[in-house]
Amino acid sequence: MREVLVLHGPNLNLLGEREPGVYGSMSLAELDERLLKEGESLGMRVRSLQSNHEGELIEALQEARKWASGVVFNPGGYTHTSVALRDAVAAIDLPVVEVHLSNVHAREVFRQNSLIAPVCVGQVSGFGWRSYLLALQALKGFFENQEGEV
Amino acid sequence: MREVLVLHGPNLNLLGEREPGVYGSMSLAELDERLLKEGESLGMRVRSLQSNHEGELIEALQEARKWASGVVFNPGGYTHTSVALRDAVAAIDLPVVEVHLSNVHAREVFRQNSLIAPVCVGQVSGFGWRSYLLALQALKGFFENQEGEV
Amino acid sequence: MREVLVLHGPNLNLLGEREPGVYGSMSLAELDERLLKEGESLGMRVRSLQSNHEGELIEALQEARKWASGVVFNPGGYTHTSVALRDAVAAIDLPVVEVHLSNVHAREVFRQNSLIAPVCVGQVSGFGWRSYLLALQALKGFFENQEGEV
Amino acid sequence: MREVLVLHGPNLNLLGEREPGVYGSMSLAELDERLLKEGESLGMRVRSLQSNHEGELIEALQEARKWASGVVFNPGGYTHTSVALRDAVAAIDLPVVEVHLSNVHAREVFRQNSLIAPVCVGQVSGFGWRSYLLALQALKGFFENQEGEV
Amino acid sequence: MREVLVLHGPNLNLLGEREPGVYGSMSLAELDERLLKEGESLGMRVRSLQSNHEGELIEALQEARKWASGVVFNPGGYTHTSVALRDAVAAIDLPVVEVHLSNVHAREVFRQNSLIAPVCVGQVSGFGWRSYLLALQALKGFFENQEGEV
Amino acid sequence: MREVLVLHGPNLNLLGEREPGVYGSMSLAELDERLLKEGESLGMRVRSLQSNHEGELIEALQEARKWASGVVFNPGGYTHTSVALRDAVAAIDLPVVEVHLSNVHAREVFRQNSLIAPVCVGQVSGFGWRSYLLALQALKGFFENQEGEV
Amino acid sequence: MREVLVLHGPNLNLLGEREPGVYGSMSLAELDERLLKEGESLGMRVRSLQSNHEGELIEALQEARKWASGVVFNPGGYTHTSVALRDAVAAIDLPVVEVHLSNVHAREVFRQNSLIAPVCVGQVSGFGWRSYLLALQALKGFFENQEGEV
Amino acid sequence: MREVLVLHGPNLNLLGEREPGVYGSMSLAELDERLLKEGESLGMRVRSLQSNHEGELIEALQEARKWASGVVFNPGGYTHTSVALRDAVAAIDLPVVEVHLSNVHAREVFRQNSLIAPVCVGQVSGFGWRSYLLALQALKGFFENQEGEV
Amino acid sequence: MREVLVLHGPNLNLLGEREPGVYGSMSLAELDERLLKEGESLGMRVRSLQSNHEGELIEALQEARKWASGVVFNPGGYTHTSVALRDAVAAIDLPVVEVHLSNVHAREVFRQNSLIAPVCVGQVSGFGWRSYLLALQALKGFFENQEGEV
Amino acid sequence: MREVLVLHGPNLNLLGEREPGVYGSMSLAELDERLLKEGESLGMRVRSLQSNHEGELIEALQEARKWASGVVFNPGGYTHTSVALRDAVAAIDLPVVEVHLSNVHAREVFRQNSLIAPVCVGQVSGFGWRSYLLALQALKGFFENQEGEV
Amino acid sequence: MREVLVLHGPNLNLLGEREPGVYGSMSLAELDERLLKEGESLGMRVRSLQSNHEGELIEALQEARKWASGVVFNPGGYTHTSVALRDAVAAIDLPVVEVHLSNVHAREVFRQNSLIAPVCVGQVSGFGWRSYLLALQALKGFFENQEGEV
Amino acid sequence: MREVLVLHGPNLNLLGEREPGVYGSMSLAELDERLLKEGESLGMRVRSLQSNHEGELIEALQEARKWASGVVFNPGGYTHTSVALRDAVAAIDLPVVEVHLSNVHAREVFRQNSLIAPVCVGQVSGFGWRSYLLALQALKGFFENQEGEV
Repeated sequence: MREVLVLHGPNLNLLGEREPGVYGSMSLAELDERLLKEGESLGMRVRSLQSNHEGELIEALQEARKWASGVVFNPGGYTHTSVALRDAVAAIDLPVVEVHLSNVHAREVFRQNSLIAPVCVGQVSGFGWRSYLLALQALKGFFENQEGEV
Repeated sequence: MREVLVLHGPNLNLLGEREPGVYGSMSLAELDERLLKEGESLGMRVRSLQSNHEGELIEALQEARKWASGVVFNPGGYTHTSVALRDAVAAIDLPVVEVHLSNVHAREVFRQNSLIAPVCVGQVSGFGWRSYLLALQALKGFFENQEGEV
Repeated sequence: MREVLVLHGPNLNLLGEREPGVYGSMSLAELDERLLKEGESLGMRVRSLQSNHEGELIEALQEARKWASGVVFNPGGYTHTSVALRDAVAAIDLPVVEVHLSNVHAREVFRQNSLIAPVCVGQVSGFGWRSYLLALQALKGFFENQEGEV
Repeated sequence: MREVLVLHGPNLNLLGEREPGVYGSMSLAELDERLLKEGESLGMRVRSLQSNHEGELIEALQEARKWASGVVFNPGGYTHTSVALRDAVAAIDLPVVEVHLSNVHAREVFRQNSLIAPVCVGQVSGFGWRSYLLALQALKGFFENQEGEV
Repeated sequence: MREVLVLHGPNLNLLGEREPGVYGSMSLAELDERLLKEGESLGMRVRSLQSNHEGELIEALQEARKWASGVVFNPGGYTHTSVALRDAVAAIDLPVVEVHLSNVHAREVFRQNSLIAPVCVGQVSGFGWRSYLLALQALKGFFENQEGEV
Repeated sequence: MREVLVLHGPNLNLLGEREPGVYGSMSLAELDERLLKEGESLGMRVRSLQSNHEGELIEALQEARKWASGVVFNPGGYTHTSVALRDAVAAIDLPVVEVHLSNVHAREVFRQNSLIAPVCVGQVSGFGWRSYLLALQALKGFFENQEGEV
Repeated sequence: MREVLVLHGPNLNLLGEREPGVYGSMSLAELDERLLKEGESLGMRVRSLQSNHEGELIEALQEARKWASGVVFNPGGYTHTSVALRDAVAAIDLPVVEVHLSNVHAREVFRQNSLIAPVCVGQVSGFGWRSYLLALQALKGFFENQEGEV
Repeated sequence: MREVLVLHGPNLNLLGEREPGVYGSMSLAELDERLLKEGESLGMRVRSLQSNHEGELIEALQEARKWASGVVFNPGGYTHTSVALRDAVAAIDLPVVEVHLSNVHAREVFRQNSLIAPVCVGQVSGFGWRSYLLALQALKGFFENQEGEV
Repeated sequence: MREVLVLHGPNLNLLGEREPGVYGSMSLAELDERLLKEGESLGMRVRSLQSNHEGELIEALQEARKWASGVVFNPGGYTHTSVALRDAVAAIDLPVVEVHLSNVHAREVFRQNSLIAPVCVGQVSGFGWRSYLLALQALKGFFENQEGEV
Repeated sequence: MREVLVLHGPNLNLLGEREPGVYGSMSLAELDERLLKEGESLGMRVRSLQSNHEGELIEALQEARKWASGVVFNPGGYTHTSVALRDAVAAIDLPVVEVHLSNVHAREVFRQNSLIAPVCVGQVSGFGWRSYLLALQALKGFFENQEGEV
Repeated sequence: MREVLVLHGPNLNLLGEREPGVYGSMSLAELDERLLKEGESLGMRVRSLQSNHEGELIEALQEARKWASGVVFNPGGYTHTSVALRDAVAAIDLPVVEVHLSNVHAREVFRQNSLIAPVCVGQVSGFGWRSYLLALQALKGFFENQEGEV
Repeated sequence: MREVLVLHGPNLNLLGEREPGVYGSMSLAELDERLLKEGESLGMRVRSLQSNHEGELIEALQEARKWASGVVFNPGGYTHTSVALRDAVAAIDLPVVEVHLSNVHAREVFRQNSLIAPVCVGQVSGFGWRSYLLALQALKGFFENQEGEV
């Protein structure tokens, strides 16, 4: 069974509390539970982690090299400003899928460019908490692809 | 059962033939068959259409208003240059999911901006033909959301 | 009696149907009828044409050289992206008036620049379907000017 | 009978004198007379004012709130540089139509952007003194629209 | 007792009348009275002046050299476009505090750059009419600083 | 009595030690004491916090939702680069006043744009430690405004 | 004998008719005849095609994969705006030579950048109808090079 | 004897008073006297005018058409921002020489571009009050050139 | 028989030695010999010159006025940076054809703009040493055109 | 004996493990040992520190004021994005040498600008782990210079 | 008697020959003779030098340190591109006046910025060969200023 | 023993003479002597060359292919403008180290980009004449690396 890290960036600990009209009323704990179950049904063991600290996110990515087969990563506000996180993603030998709750392409100009996406496998954005489910499935597809299952 | 349009933009008729190392060896016909099946399993009737003509794509979107509940759209090279397609997406009252085979964020600068995405529900890119499957699932989630199934 | 081409670009076939709050409830057929009548009262025979295809718009302009004395042109979303349409306008020896339903200067940044306007006689924008009436009148004034009627 | 202010910006007092090949030989006084008559035929009482002073133009706009139903405004060279005039247009509750003698879209780059247009109803440019007539008619249409005459 | 000029730029004479939802219902006369009182309580004699004319604002600043110890200046729409006002502020040997009713940093892009602020002591923006009170207090602090009161 | 968080960003722990000619000789501890007193005289209980860590600043803002009525925030060098801090300010339902010791508008180009200010109530910059006092007063005014005291 | 496609983009059907002072008096038919003959003398069978439709040009390129050894392509106004045509050129395994009648580098700024040229073998511009002859010769040289004839 | 207008823009009335270390201790009155004499020795009758008002400068230029043969113009801070003054210079049929006390090319970026210079005969900058003398001489040379004196 | 200058810019003396995989194994001497022969067969006497010195290239162009009818010019790295060479090309009354071995449009951004091309007859790039042959033929066509041979 | 801080930024803890083909197989521990020895031979006591946390790096710099005479600093991915680190370097009174393993000038555009370098003594980049040795020597030279040893 | 270098940059040796309609029919030799005489009448011994070589111009400036009191310099096409010439001007302790025959501010965009002017005393442009005379006079004024003659 | 070229660009012949406060009082001859000795101690034979001529620098680099193993290159003002020098560095098969006396990253914007550095091994800047010593050592390390000495 494959291990997968789901990594939540800054301010995602407020999920469900802040602007429920926009982000829905599901809390981060509930989301993580769903991802755990979805992971199981996909044959993947999901471990979730949230941090508001750029350094901790870097280190979670570095650690993942030792135990995980892939990463689903929502870099939040660091998406657009962190070369250090990009370097961390590039440094580890794991497939990383970038994920966003909102459709970042429809927001402020400074949110339309991602420093992380160019070193990821792909990006899913705009589908709320379902973006994470899709990212897990994308990761599963990536593994199948690697194993020649096409 | 919901009707869904899968709309393929310019050059996608070459799928499987051009640069199979990059785009895989699956042809457009095979992809459409898969989408048909995936759609069925998700409770959606999928109709696929490919065109290299901007005008035909505009009209396919306009037509979809009359029979479809949602659209999965790969605008290909028109993604970055067509205000007319953006206007067509904005004009119809349907949820549209933008989809790309390759990770456009990792390519040339002129591919990193999408004129279409800001008027879509969301975007999936980088997972090859699986991007389409994920987009169908995203559409299904969007419908569930609308129906309050959360 | 002068012949005049009124040329409608992409998505204008949806007039009256899409976003009536913004664009009004008048259909393209009704608009064309009004323009026909207005043309008559101004001593001009108006023929209208709509196309979503850049190539057809180019050819309509090229054709107009053979029968029309002037053109009222709403290039829609192609306004901001089509060098080929600009070249077509420049290639024919007819006065062309660019027209827009909405005030394009008050919308997204990418709508504030027109590739077509610099090769037109002038531009009218922001007055809904009345923009077309004003453009017909502007064309009439242009003809009077040419004939030294000042 | 509606009152309308026609406001001419800097250097328009030279009309008819400077570069008659470009701007025609009609003087500002003659133009104002024409506008008076055209106004009458449209059921509008036109008062004209010219000033080279940004501050006087601001104050003319502010004054217009007290007596006019609409404004036809040629901001001349201030079109591209005056945030203060933009604020004045935005501050008053009157429909303003921006008007230009020449086709500003076909001139120097710094003339292609208008700070005023985004807070106006619309813009007419390129038809010489006739631009003003069209603007008066546009204003009339705007009033009819408001009154539900469509 | 120190003399202070409070200088209001273009369109501020409309205060209380225009968009009261945004700018509040206090008129310029009422604001000036408040500033007079606040000044007294801070040991400063306040004289207020409003002008829509860039030239008059320049001259008010030049005049202030002869009688005032400091200036509170709301340059309105000239903030972003007037090198001449910047030169006037730089030319006089008085501390000037730039003040804005609204949070200019949260508005249009062209409002986010101030040509005046770099030659001022500091800037206060976003607190409605209270921005002026804060600016007076800031000026008082500046004087105390100069006098070594820390 | 209202609770207020005063949040100091990176390098502000060096206050009084570094470049006293520029920033004055007052230490951060002394400043915090002054703010405590000023707060009391304004009917506000002030708690101060300094951190060089972006993540800790995010969390301090998130925590403040639970106990504070408003925030005075000097984001230091993060002002110009942190989308994550902007998101944190936007996520909490508290009025935040941005504050700077120096006149950032008179410094390097990269300091002239604030990512935080657009989601704040307003900004005070350029008055040394007094900027903080003014910000507290601005906050008080904001509360009075909310309570309809005008 | 090698087969070569000569592909003419938008507005080139007007050759000889529009602005003969600029483009010469040779019609497209005459040009195509010359190219046929020049091709023969170079050992190449030339088939010419003109279209104003971006989609048809894409499909002509795609078709050429099946029968042609190389392409001479004048993308006209699409040169500067069509990512879809660029993708078509990149997708087929044929050498393509970009050709322009006029010296595009000496014209408007928006004509100085080609989206197509980076995926072509080379570019010839500025020599009128002779640009096409040179492009045919360039193609012949390319073939000789491939065959080791240096 | 030729008549020449010397036109001083905003803040030049402070000459000699402000920053004498930079601009010298000569007052505007003294400078005008020198120019009067220099003009006499060059066979030109010089009339000087200073205004801080953009509108007055426009009108002084317009007036000059009626009595002057040429203009020496220091537009001060309006140099970089006034399209209206540029239009005034272009509208009158007089040779205008732009003049600056300081070397504007060595100052802030926003001072390095002149909107006025492209419609002037030439520019002299950087030589303090002597810039004006040189400009008078340049004007004289221009007249001699016109008269075929080479 | 017409005289033609073939002018090679900086680093072209290394032809054949540097990166033969890219530039081929033909030396500059061999290329010049080919050009001599090709010239003869076209009725042109070719003289070749190479220099790494911008000044020498300028002077070679100036000299060519005295003896040559046209120039084939590869400005190498000076293509993108030399206004002085542009001025030299513009100053002489000779047709100049710009030529490049590689497809400069497919290389670094700073190579995609030519300062020289706008003052040339046309440009040939991307065909290795054959670019020069094509340029000679282009020049011949230019002469024929001048002589009315069409 | 002088004390020197060698400060390693984000992801440098992976040295030797990640992409050994690029960064070599030397681990951070081995590098630090080398620097310790090199320092001794240069008469400097070297203490090394690595952190992925921007805040910890800021504090390490602040701490260094109390015990070190100079700093060798590799800011990694923070080089291009951290104003806060720049402020920390500027705030302490120590010579700092910026160092990079790879030649940052030959990489992505966003790596070609350093926010830190302008407040450093100098920069060394491109020589792998040897960049650090050179930086230590540069620091030694800086000290000698200060002491007048030239 | 002061020694002055008049330094002419690239292509100025063609003066009088190229485009006499623009640059006049005076040759460089005649100009130099005039400058010699004008110099004498101003109490300055003028030595003129022309070179098309950037390196020779650099060295002429360096040499001038040994014998000249000032320089009149027309950098021609190098004005806009040569940091090396700027460094040479900055390195020598001589007043340099930049001079241009044409009004560079009215020409192509790339001619509107001078790299040399910021390190010169001032600039004279637009007055043909008279620009040089004015520059000599400007230099004389500069010397008088230095000697306290005001 | 390895041969190394030390190549000094424009204006470096003035070393020690110009602005000794900035560049130190060491002359170029003294520096070259130091480099000779340092080279010897590192087992490298150093030959130095200075030129103000871009063409000579290109040729010195080309010549170096025949006798040298590496180059230390200070391109001076050509660093930021010379594509031709970049091409020369790229064309020769030698390791080149770019070196600067001053910290170019802390100077004018136009000095912050190097066209040469991307094709060099690395860059050393900011340490005065010691920058050269460090560059020699960097070169030695590069050779050791090549020889597998790590």
